[in-house]
Amino acid sequence: MRTILVIGIGAGNPDYLTLQAIKAMNRAEVFFMPDKGEEKAGLNAIRLAMLEQFVSEPRYRLVEFAIPSRRKAATPDYRDSVEEWRDKLEVAYQRMFAELPDDGVGAFLVWGDPALYDGTLRILRDMQAAGSPIAIEVIPGISAPQALAAQHQVTLNRVGEAVTITTGRRVGEGEADALSSAVVMLDNHQVFRRFAMDEAEIFWGAYLGTADEILVAGKVSEVMDEIDAKRREAQARHGWIMDTYMIRKPQAD
Amino acid sequence: MRTILVIGIGAGNPDYLTLQAIKAMNRAEVFFMPDKGEEKAGLNAIRLAMLEQFVSEPRYRLVEFAIPSRRKAATPDYRDSVEEWRDKLEVAYQRMFAELPDDGVGAFLVWGDPALYDGTLRILRDMQAAGSPIAIEVIPGISAPQALAAQHQVTLNRVGEAVTITTGRRVGEGEADALSSAVVMLDNHQVFRRFAMDEAEIFWGAYLGTADEILVAGKVSEVMDEIDAKRREAQARHGWIMDTYMIRKPQAD
Repeated sequence: MRTILVIGIGAGNPDYLTLQAIKAMNRAEVFFMPDKGEEKAGLNAIRLAMLEQFVSEPRYRLVEFAIPSRRKAATPDYRDSVEEWRDKLEVAYQRMFAELPDDGVGAFLVWGDPALYDGTLRILRDMQAAGSPIAIEVIPGISAPQALAAQHQVTLNRVGEAVTITTGRRVGEGEADALSSAVVMLDNHQVFRRFAMDEAEIFWGAYLGTADEILVAGKVSEVMDEIDAKRREAQARHGWIMDTYMIRKPQAD
Repeated sequence: MRTILVIGIGAGNPDYLTLQAIKAMNRAEVFFMPDKGEEKAGLNAIRLAMLEQFVSEPRYRLVEFAIPSRRKAATPDYRDSVEEWRDKLEVAYQRMFAELPDDGVGAFLVWGDPALYDGTLRILRDMQAAGSPIAIEVIPGISAPQALAAQHQVTLNRVGEAVTITTGRRVGEGEADALSSAVVMLDNHQVFRRFAMDEAEIFWGAYLGTADEILVAGKVSEVMDEIDAKRREAQARHGWIMDTYMIRKPQAD
């Protein structure tokens, strides 16, 4: 049976790699590399550097796969569009896995943690459920929210309270309005501005853990324009951006 | 200035250690070890084994500190009790840090990730804010929710949805009743039973990533008694238990 490793490589800093991830990288014969515009430029370079540094006896091949583009605007249902996109990826995966020997080991190097806002594991589980004879192993990685908290030296939750990890889309719809702590990923529209009136604090970071890291923290009302400007400038310079932030409301009592 | 490293060592499996954590461990002259009943038995043994395995030139000392007991029942306000407890710990920390040379490096080895349900970082930041001349560095670690998701091969969030990480106490008060995905930590009262009527699924794990790992998954209504029994049996056998779980509601559509 073919084994597919889903390896969390952490949020950018090669030192975020776990020993488990490095051991897994050394087992793979094939690495499946996403051929996506921004990923190809920025993230694949980091993936390749990790392989070069941490695979002790290189005997692996790289197999690129195209990430199908997703229908964007005018989509009636976000979930439908994701399903369609996932079906296309599943076909691409099938084709790639056929390149592995029958008992071969292939691996995906997933940014952050495979359990958080990444679709790889879901596609593999769907394939398994549909009868595809693959074994799956999942290796957790340091996620962007954790890197963010560490770099800002804050905790994700207040004492005895909860933290919600969510998306810019949902926060824009009001999901986090009543939460004390929310970490927001995948926000391309700076929806944090909606918290400016709440005396809320924001802890923002981009390219976390890398040499290009940018951190901004303060009251939303005071730093939102600074974040916006730094975000635009960095995105223009690098051609892509990976950022995340935490919103913390004033203590309720 | 003294430097205090807050090192996330992951959720139990030594292979969850990151390269950053190992580098940090090799910088510390003193490790501060909690002298707490259950921690001492189970967790400190794992901490010591990690130091033995990963510190290449051992020249460190161990300094034990007592974790003050927390007022339990009949506490009017959970937060007050935490504050009082924290003040006592702060005094203990001050005393320990005095054992470091003026430019010395000390370290805490924090279970999981220092940003998630751990008080160490908060106490240090309070000390800093009160004028204590210490530098802090935070190293994120693989948290129990991540280990749980990896071992069950599930994602923490559904496509485009949020995940809330919270406590047994809050879930017992109904916080997660309307959530699609919730990870529950620190639950000593098996409050997951409240989801039995919802057709909800539970992914439960104890001693994650260790040789003693126990995993149970299924509909809450079908596996809740099994979890309860396994939990009791394991706690009796080991003398302590560290468990966590995710609740996932049926898809809303």
